[in-house]
Amino acid sequence: MHMSSTQHTFMASHSPRVLSLTRRAFSSSSSLGGVSMIQGASRGIGFEFVRQLLENDDKGHVIATCRNPSASTGLIHLKDKFRDRLRIMPLDLTVESSIEASALSIKETYGRLNLLINASGILSIPDVLHPETTLNKVEKSSLMLAYETNAVGPILVIKHMWPLLKIGGGHGTERSAAVVASLSARVGSIGDNHLGGWHSYRASKAALNQLSKTVSVEFGRKKDPIVCILLHPGTVDTDLSKPFQKNVPPEKLFSKEFSVQKLLSIINNVNSHDNGKFFAWDGQEIPW
Amino acid sequence: MHMSSTQHTFMASHSPRVLSLTRRAFSSSSSLGGVSMIQGASRGIGFEFVRQLLENDDKGHVIATCRNPSASTGLIHLKDKFRDRLRIMPLDLTVESSIEASALSIKETYGRLNLLINASGILSIPDVLHPETTLNKVEKSSLMLAYETNAVGPILVIKHMWPLLKIGGGHGTERSAAVVASLSARVGSIGDNHLGGWHSYRASKAALNQLSKTVSVEFGRKKDPIVCILLHPGTVDTDLSKPFQKNVPPEKLFSKEFSVQKLLSIINNVNSHDNGKFFAWDGQEIPW
Repeated sequence: MHMSSTQHTFMASHSPRVLSLTRRAFSSSSSLGGVSMIQGASRGIGFEFVRQLLENDDKGHVIATCRNPSASTGLIHLKDKFRDRLRIMPLDLTVESSIEASALSIKETYGRLNLLINASGILSIPDVLHPETTLNKVEKSSLMLAYETNAVGPILVIKHMWPLLKIGGGHGTERSAAVVASLSARVGSIGDNHLGGWHSYRASKAALNQLSKTVSVEFGRKKDPIVCILLHPGTVDTDLSKPFQKNVPPEKLFSKEFSVQKLLSIINNVNSHDNGKFFAWDGQEIPW
Repeated sequence: MHMSSTQHTFMASHSPRVLSLTRRAFSSSSSLGGVSMIQGASRGIGFEFVRQLLENDDKGHVIATCRNPSASTGLIHLKDKFRDRLRIMPLDLTVESSIEASALSIKETYGRLNLLINASGILSIPDVLHPETTLNKVEKSSLMLAYETNAVGPILVIKHMWPLLKIGGGHGTERSAAVVASLSARVGSIGDNHLGGWHSYRASKAALNQLSKTVSVEFGRKKDPIVCILLHPGTVDTDLSKPFQKNVPPEKLFSKEFSVQKLLSIINNVNSHDNGKFFAWDGQEIPW
């Protein structure tokens, strides 16, 4: 079930809990020359954002960051095809000076940002990080690692890209403002937590939600032309979800293509009233 | 405005968002021989919990833990008066082996726990940790320190005290189950975050809320005789709030005595339906 972004008007609703997608017809090239940064772009959902932004837009520039660009065959392949519009940049989320260096480089080359997507995230790492099935398995090292990567890193990226986003706003795109979209997860919702488990991941995403909300309040108060949102991509067939797919019914396991198409439709339709909100892939707001 | 716990029946309500205090008359000695552990007891709210549990109960045992017992003149003074009922124990929240050692020691002496209060918390430390007034001031070290102390530490304490709480349940007290109460804060609420700022503190408390909720789900599923709740004490006149009191109207700045009396009234009245909830000092549930 893949849809083009122009088919998304069925999601429009007057319910306050559903993103009100406007009915203006979005062309597929909705960022029209904008500058987008995808943080965590080597694979999975982040990589798919890069691909769709390049394929669906014939002008926009995309900065794809990841820890080790030379290991991402996907990005290297895309670079062949979009030599002038794709910039691959090393960025280690856990090293603030690396984030600062990226901001400086983007400033020098592009002078602005119109879109920042925080797509990185960790759930399990063999022999290092395991989603906990019980409190007995909760370890300090796992809690700290998930927090550093899933909550602290993305906020530091927003901190350093903030001046560039203020300059960018919606300028040169069909969006009304710059957009900061951070990938959260429904399991980060405290109110929706009925199953327990996954302590480190859940806590890190709840903290990311709180940090993103906190940042959105400041953007709003300062009337910065930036909308800061959180996104739940659904359960997507990526390396992150691979070890946990066996109990997911096939119709609930989304392809990267489908999920990112949905998320881009949200990103391209938010306005200042959506600043600070947390949306699922289908535009439904998720409780905190 | 100090009230005895028997006067709290005005809080009873059928609203789902207010803790339904039962109308059974609680005597002031409501823990009647129970074993209570107060983690973070050297001063402030934690110390006041220790004091009230000892003064209001003529049988219960209290274990007061803090990093450096010899520096707490308050605890040393209380020890003179309650030699047989108060045990002061060193516990460094940031060192898991120290938490394990406390659990072992409590097991050997008392064999159980009926109440665990996580009362520790950091908001500001001169020259180290400052509540952030803007995203520009957010530092990785502050985010990590607040998380380690306000979220990770309390959950590790619950992890290691869990077997003792299962044994204890409500046995020997007037409570229907063992209670784990962790001090959170209204500013940890994401839904209630309209002012922004205090990124590190807010994120750590949102994560604590998520971790406590996650733990409560497991206790509930296993039918452990434990109720796990979060408490907002109000703005209380302690060292923690001292630097931030100037804009607090006098009637909203509570004494430690008043706040702890209110919180103990909640602790003494919760039942299994309250497992996983987040209550303000007045029994109102706080949104996530």
